[in-house]
Amino acid sequence: MSIRIGIFGYGNLGRGVEAAIRQNRDMTLSAVFTRRDPSSLKIATEGVPVVHVDDVQKWTDKIDVMILCGGSATDLPEQTPALAKYFNVVDSFDTHAKIPEHFENVDKSARESGKVGIISVGWDPGMFSLNRLFGGAVLVDGKDYTFWGKGVSQGHSDAIRRIEGVADARQYTIPIDSALEAVRSGSNPELTTREKHLRECFVVAKEGADLARIENEIKTMPNYFADYDTTVHFISAEELKANHSRLMHGGFVIRSGRTGLDLENNHIIEYSLKLDSNPEFTASVIVAYARAAYRLNGEGACGCKTVLDIPPAYLSAKDGATLRKELL
Amino acid sequence: MSIRIGIFGYGNLGRGVEAAIRQNRDMTLSAVFTRRDPSSLKIATEGVPVVHVDDVQKWTDKIDVMILCGGSATDLPEQTPALAKYFNVVDSFDTHAKIPEHFENVDKSARESGKVGIISVGWDPGMFSLNRLFGGAVLVDGKDYTFWGKGVSQGHSDAIRRIEGVADARQYTIPIDSALEAVRSGSNPELTTREKHLRECFVVAKEGADLARIENEIKTMPNYFADYDTTVHFISAEELKANHSRLMHGGFVIRSGRTGLDLENNHIIEYSLKLDSNPEFTASVIVAYARAAYRLNGEGACGCKTVLDIPPAYLSAKDGATLRKELL
Repeated sequence: MSIRIGIFGYGNLGRGVEAAIRQNRDMTLSAVFTRRDPSSLKIATEGVPVVHVDDVQKWTDKIDVMILCGGSATDLPEQTPALAKYFNVVDSFDTHAKIPEHFENVDKSARESGKVGIISVGWDPGMFSLNRLFGGAVLVDGKDYTFWGKGVSQGHSDAIRRIEGVADARQYTIPIDSALEAVRSGSNPELTTREKHLRECFVVAKEGADLARIENEIKTMPNYFADYDTTVHFISAEELKANHSRLMHGGFVIRSGRTGLDLENNHIIEYSLKLDSNPEFTASVIVAYARAAYRLNGEGACGCKTVLDIPPAYLSAKDGATLRKELL
Repeated sequence: MSIRIGIFGYGNLGRGVEAAIRQNRDMTLSAVFTRRDPSSLKIATEGVPVVHVDDVQKWTDKIDVMILCGGSATDLPEQTPALAKYFNVVDSFDTHAKIPEHFENVDKSARESGKVGIISVGWDPGMFSLNRLFGGAVLVDGKDYTFWGKGVSQGHSDAIRRIEGVADARQYTIPIDSALEAVRSGSNPELTTREKHLRECFVVAKEGADLARIENEIKTMPNYFADYDTTVHFISAEELKANHSRLMHGGFVIRSGRTGLDLENNHIIEYSLKLDSNPEFTASVIVAYARAAYRLNGEGACGCKTVLDIPPAYLSAKDGATLRKELL
């Protein structure tokens, strides 16, 4: 029997989930839920209903796992606990400081309903978190390093767009090679924010805007840019569209640690991602965890979980004997 | 309370486990078990008893997890099921083709005793298996590549030592850079054995031995060398000791896969290890899984498990709330 999936919110991530479901033969897309007028929304999959979010409770018997594709700022803190009352849910909540609170809210809701909620799924948080866990558990005496990029940061691009005189912008976060090499050498360097990443900005200015002022406002923006070496390129709207439309991203989690009676031996564990499409990769991780949510709930589990709690085999469509034979 | 660990077999791996236990404050080494005369064995930890294997049953109440440090060829197929009758056990069984059979034997034994047995723990099988699982579950349409090295292959070194006229030898397995680059490019190449790895041999010949014959016997040895480009260097015993004593190893697991409605986007997941000491790193992985065995059994679980079955959080000494706060 196919796992019946609902998509709650149809932006970049929702479309990525829709595409990922097609790659998993044990899953079916049952419905897409939207706050917009459903008749105005055209989805990629023929014959799948688009439903208004207000009608979601009519679908409790027709959906095994609801995948939440809203934003972490305002959507998920409300939606995930609310929907966990009726569905197994998976979300990609990524506001780091609020994860403990979000966990508690989803846990309470999912325990009452007897459903499973898996939160903060994707690559960071997600696969990167898993690699920080494995690295630290195996190399106890060591140090973690996370680098992001080269990739598009949506938050930083938005921050530039809010500057007066900016029509559009795209910001790339770029890890600095010399920092990566220092970490890989096992020297366990202390690295400042500026030493780890560069920020490169491609900006379309409005006609007549003061470019020098825009560049200065970007480079001195607290939190976002002031602590980094930042370069700003002014380009045309056409060039932005032609060369900077792809939502590529990636990054590195490196654990450097020592073993031996005198900690005389060094080891480097490195995990890296090079992604053509950030939302599609995130969606692919989420869909694998939707399978885990379905199975765990089928075994009677309930409450909130994260990637750290899920036995890896639950992500795969293959059974245990096959996995042992093929992967060990 | 400290997790009480027993070490069963005291070779390179056993010594690595002994060192790793010191790095984990929630664990104590309770005893080392040996087939040798216990009075002849000097271990690194003061005050810990060395016990003959025949007396192991006297320790059932004094050890929480027994870590088996014998070989996969003849030791572990007998020892792991036998000891799982009395102890939670962890081993590093790595004879790939026999893992399903070994799993069944340990499972039967551990279910009868109510203990947990975790088999095939280390880096391959082990961390590499986990990465093959995660990679395949997330990037469904894709291809796995595993490269080993640069590192010392004990099995290949032993094979050279069995050749007439060879006093000692050390063999390095070396991944070929151009193959790694082809995989990282996302082109999903089909690679032959010869295209993936080189084999480099450092050989100490006995006095008067026929070097040309030795070199030819190495390069044409079926399974071990015939399918590879192999180089042979004859060196002195002193040089072997000075430059080739370290048991370094490592490798790469790469998943290359596509997503999108038309599979138009490519993604690369790469996991790599660069290890100064193969046995110490393997021991560090095993010790983390010993913690998991102890906890799982404490919750009432029993039977055989592999790394694919264990929730990652069970490897860490930190509690769930701390892990969510620090790692997600």
